Amino acid sequence: MLKTTIIGASGYTGAELALMVHKHPELTLSGLYVSANSLDAGKSIAELHGKLAGIISHPVLPLTDVEAVAQASDVVFLATAHEVSHDLAPTFLAQGCQVFDLSGAFRVKKEGFYDQFYGFEHQHEAWLDNSVYGLAEWNQDGIKQCQLVAVPGCYPTASQLAIKPLLEAGLVDGSQWPVINATSGVSGAGRKASMTNSYCEVSLQPYGVFNHRHQPEIASHLGTDVIFTPHLGNFKRGILATITIKLAKDVTEQQVAEAFNSAYQGKPAVRLTADVLPRIQNVENTPFCDIGWKVQGEHIIVVSAIDNLLKGASSQAMQCLNIHYGFPELTALI
Amino acid sequence: MLKTTIIGASGYTGAELALMVHKHPELTLSGLYVSANSLDAGKSIAELHGKLAGIISHPVLPLTDVEAVAQASDVVFLATAHEVSHDLAPTFLAQGCQVFDLSGAFRVKKEGFYDQFYGFEHQHEAWLDNSVYGLAEWNQDGIKQCQLVAVPGCYPTASQLAIKPLLEAGLVDGSQWPVINATSGVSGAGRKASMTNSYCEVSLQPYGVFNHRHQPEIASHLGTDVIFTPHLGNFKRGILATITIKLAKDVTEQQVAEAFNSAYQGKPAVRLTADVLPRIQNVENTPFCDIGWKVQGEHIIVVSAIDNLLKGASSQAMQCLNIHYGFPELTALI
Amino acid sequence: MLKTTIIGASGYTGAELALMVHKHPELTLSGLYVSANSLDAGKSIAELHGKLAGIISHPVLPLTDVEAVAQASDVVFLATAHEVSHDLAPTFLAQGCQVFDLSGAFRVKKEGFYDQFYGFEHQHEAWLDNSVYGLAEWNQDGIKQCQLVAVPGCYPTASQLAIKPLLEAGLVDGSQWPVINATSGVSGAGRKASMTNSYCEVSLQPYGVFNHRHQPEIASHLGTDVIFTPHLGNFKRGILATITIKLAKDVTEQQVAEAFNSAYQGKPAVRLTADVLPRIQNVENTPFCDIGWKVQGEHIIVVSAIDNLLKGASSQAMQCLNIHYGFPELTALI
Amino acid sequence: MLKTTIIGASGYTGAELALMVHKHPELTLSGLYVSANSLDAGKSIAELHGKLAGIISHPVLPLTDVEAVAQASDVVFLATAHEVSHDLAPTFLAQGCQVFDLSGAFRVKKEGFYDQFYGFEHQHEAWLDNSVYGLAEWNQDGIKQCQLVAVPGCYPTASQLAIKPLLEAGLVDGSQWPVINATSGVSGAGRKASMTNSYCEVSLQPYGVFNHRHQPEIASHLGTDVIFTPHLGNFKRGILATITIKLAKDVTEQQVAEAFNSAYQGKPAVRLTADVLPRIQNVENTPFCDIGWKVQGEHIIVVSAIDNLLKGASSQAMQCLNIHYGFPELTALI
Repeated sequence: MLKTTIIGASGYTGAELALMVHKHPELTLSGLYVSANSLDAGKSIAELHGKLAGIISHPVLPLTDVEAVAQASDVVFLATAHEVSHDLAPTFLAQGCQVFDLSGAFRVKKEGFYDQFYGFEHQHEAWLDNSVYGLAEWNQDGIKQCQLVAVPGCYPTASQLAIKPLLEAGLVDGSQWPVINATSGVSGAGRKASMTNSYCEVSLQPYGVFNHRHQPEIASHLGTDVIFTPHLGNFKRGILATITIKLAKDVTEQQVAEAFNSAYQGKPAVRLTADVLPRIQNVENTPFCDIGWKVQGEHIIVVSAIDNLLKGASSQAMQCLNIHYGFPELTALI
Repeated sequence: MLKTTIIGASGYTGAELALMVHKHPELTLSGLYVSANSLDAGKSIAELHGKLAGIISHPVLPLTDVEAVAQASDVVFLATAHEVSHDLAPTFLAQGCQVFDLSGAFRVKKEGFYDQFYGFEHQHEAWLDNSVYGLAEWNQDGIKQCQLVAVPGCYPTASQLAIKPLLEAGLVDGSQWPVINATSGVSGAGRKASMTNSYCEVSLQPYGVFNHRHQPEIASHLGTDVIFTPHLGNFKRGILATITIKLAKDVTEQQVAEAFNSAYQGKPAVRLTADVLPRIQNVENTPFCDIGWKVQGEHIIVVSAIDNLLKGASSQAMQCLNIHYGFPELTALI
Repeated sequence: MLKTTIIGASGYTGAELALMVHKHPELTLSGLYVSANSLDAGKSIAELHGKLAGIISHPVLPLTDVEAVAQASDVVFLATAHEVSHDLAPTFLAQGCQVFDLSGAFRVKKEGFYDQFYGFEHQHEAWLDNSVYGLAEWNQDGIKQCQLVAVPGCYPTASQLAIKPLLEAGLVDGSQWPVINATSGVSGAGRKASMTNSYCEVSLQPYGVFNHRHQPEIASHLGTDVIFTPHLGNFKRGILATITIKLAKDVTEQQVAEAFNSAYQGKPAVRLTADVLPRIQNVENTPFCDIGWKVQGEHIIVVSAIDNLLKGASSQAMQCLNIHYGFPELTALI
Repeated sequence: MLKTTIIGASGYTGAELALMVHKHPELTLSGLYVSANSLDAGKSIAELHGKLAGIISHPVLPLTDVEAVAQASDVVFLATAHEVSHDLAPTFLAQGCQVFDLSGAFRVKKEGFYDQFYGFEHQHEAWLDNSVYGLAEWNQDGIKQCQLVAVPGCYPTASQLAIKPLLEAGLVDGSQWPVINATSGVSGAGRKASMTNSYCEVSLQPYGVFNHRHQPEIASHLGTDVIFTPHLGNFKRGILATITIKLAKDVTEQQVAEAFNSAYQGKPAVRLTADVLPRIQNVENTPFCDIGWKVQGEHIIVVSAIDNLLKGASSQAMQCLNIHYGFPELTALI
């Protein structure tokens, strides 16, 4: 049994991870932590997440002695803010922990990226170089080998899984940028009070137009520019991405279908929907990414749906753990 | 044209009032104010309430010189916190303004009430004595005459309109307390950020059990004790109250119907629903209180529904204004 | 006072129209009708739409003698299915009624359009030729003069109001089709029972991809092809359209702003939002179309929001009436 | 491995059961059926319930040869309409199947009950006499022994679990009926199209006042009359019951706490919440019933929350199976 620790257990993704660790036959939950100055420190996990009452009784402890926690852990999930992950990861790694980081701190290996898009200078380039981007269906070899897995963001997961098969198969007209319109449930903003997330103020609307951090994450990993427009939706969880792409000349529907089928053959967390396009309800509380599409003339609309807290965060992290250790990919996820 | 000023224009009830004043043929909007230290001071009303863009262009000003504002106003709506209304009302009244207070500061004339339930000592007992409780259908004479109208709370409006006809007609068995179960939309908590009102945390649940301030307001005005259990519902606006009452011996359905019919004959803001019991959708964005009921044996279930921001606050305040000045009761409300 | 009749009063748009006619100082409600075999025939409007109780007491009558109804009407709103409008309009027109048709039956003057997209052959080409497309901000002269106004669809209104200023100003790169992603509230599907609209089944999802009737309506009136992807959203009313457009070479932000400002100068139902992009809540229950945009490099994202039942149907119909008769444009709409 | 068959797999509770059987280490899914004339017959379960795609690939077959299906099954879940369960159960029982019936057909052993409340005459009184009411926390011995388990209704589960400890401990004043106000998510009405369940029509409202079938089910099993007022809430799943009870003379808070604690000691599916009263979100997608309470003077408010499709139907059925066969009670449920 792998001793598994979750840092950032007060948030929604931390709670999902705690439940998965509880259900996983090869993991044992060794500790739940929040930053030392959090008001949630000292509470039980069930007090913070009523859903976990009767299942998990661990307290959520303040993270004070990082090294001691690292020594007591085989596996660490960092469900923490970008800067916090950036600062903590090296300590856990140095102690030999296997680390799955759900933040953006190690996702992009590009000179100046963190200064420009995250507002801090990256101090751990060696780890950054040795990390793998945990897009589970595409980087399985790296995930098996790397000690540090940078789990992708929610929008980037939904977007890349939908676009990558077409790009890899050379079916995209490079002269026009793919247009990604995506809508996320409010839980994407985290567990916190704000006017924007206040019940009476939530109403379908775009945000972060032309300046959301997930645009460069998507573009850099796809190797092509995209126009990415995120929206806040009036629902708790889930992301739907509707993507418009100009196909390369003379691409057939058959070629498109083959590209998706061969990309996701044997990948249990991706479900290709046939006639019915994806909808959020079908993926809510599941580890799946549903992908469907329609072709007309030179254009294709690809639609993908995920649970932003699961395939967009926690379950993809656990899927990476399962891949890393050779467990069945969806262990503890269904 | 009556010069009309709204204090507390940044909140949801203030915004509703602003729109009503705009639509009212006998009123002119003379000023919108928030407390001097509010972060909203200086913004335009449309910046705070996007719905009002293109309709009202007034700025929301910091309330610094209360006397000057009073002198420039014929009518003042106080859509402010209890203590703020308590402190401000006398100044406006002394300058001759007609005041409609939407807070709880002048609702109950009972020794020690404010110390016990509101946590402050009432300093303006003379005004309290000379105020009228603005339950529009029941206190029309007082509303016509008084300079200070204390507009009832949202739950008390829904509850009293449903119970009072039965009590007045002597149809209630006094040995058992009426049981009021009511559910309010989230806007009842006001326009502010909090974890409780955070989109992802809102889920049907009771709160304030046995200790909500509206219980003594209801009980004191009805003259009988009640069990009042409020709930937070997952919708933006509206209140539904389901009230269980033991009827006095041998009361007939006919007597019940007569009690309601005679109570609300000629009262345009109360709609007695027949076979179909009230639902929130029918009263949303309307000034109405819908009331329906079913009798079985010795018990009656009375159901009432209002829009908490309108009949439970702003439109009832405007209805009181219409009554006070002799305008048709629903002017500017439909 | 113009005697005003509504055909199709059992639906959501019919109910909205009834309330507007009630509020309009120059109109009198002369009759509410449904098709003769409707189960709703004979009910009161308040029985069908509880919100109207206490306001409108008219019965909803079966439409049997169309000529008699026409003779008793100055103005007729057709809130009916496409084929029904197609069949009814000529009778009302022949009797001299001013007709506002909310269906698609007279929207597009293009050979073969109705066969291809509506599945019926158009029998009234003369009336089609003499009708005007009631996109209120753009066709004011035609609306003033024509006896038959074909009120645009909901998606086409949101889309065209957002795109047309850029096209007219020559700011669009014609080599790439505008990409319209739009999400509508469930009321867009009308007042009826279906699994798709069942509460438990509604969840954000695309539909009608590459084959929705509103695509050719938009394309034909804009004079350029578009990719239009509608979505069903989990809310009752409203449409948000997010539109991605490649700008012509060297277009500046200034030119874009001028195009919108000059297009909607003096048009009270369009509100150009500045820094904050539109959201559905701001236009819900209002006659407005909110439009905002962001430019980056060669691309622009334009976002528009309307209430699908109002600016997308009923209030635009009433706005056309106001324009036709020379009443202030937003009479009865705020 | 027990061969497990689900009749009524097209509905929401059938789908939940299918997933539980899939996850259960001691069960194997031997067949999914719907009535022979259902339009869903022949579809795959994933086509009906998109959430199950990639997990369960069984077809949903028409139930034509009941005996053959019975012979191929060790365990049968009847997620069918009352009359259908009534007709089918004896055949499965005669073939030796262990039957868990989620309908009302075998819940109440009372002369004339089915004629009066279900509109059909019960034909299988011997089986009715030999069935057990599957309120899992209270009838464990019967559930262990009986071949036919009648799983309680959703409202009765939430209501009885909250009231029974107080009644059993003799803490209730028998002269006043407990008042149960409960609100259910729309899934309680089943998977079907209707105007009542149409997205645009759902809005908090009471229904079935004084005449809902669950009132006599509750009253008969509690052995005391109750006033039960159900409501339709605007959410997909969950029930919240708020129950007002007059306590017997001189009952203390301590006695109340002891009654609940001793009733649910060692019962893993009931969670007694302390300071925070239950809310639906905490039990959604879980097998738990959360129960909390407040005492004041002679009255107690008890609040319970369940997922109507799980503890109110499917997970309670599986819990009964686990009890019957001696598996850990929450196997396959977390």
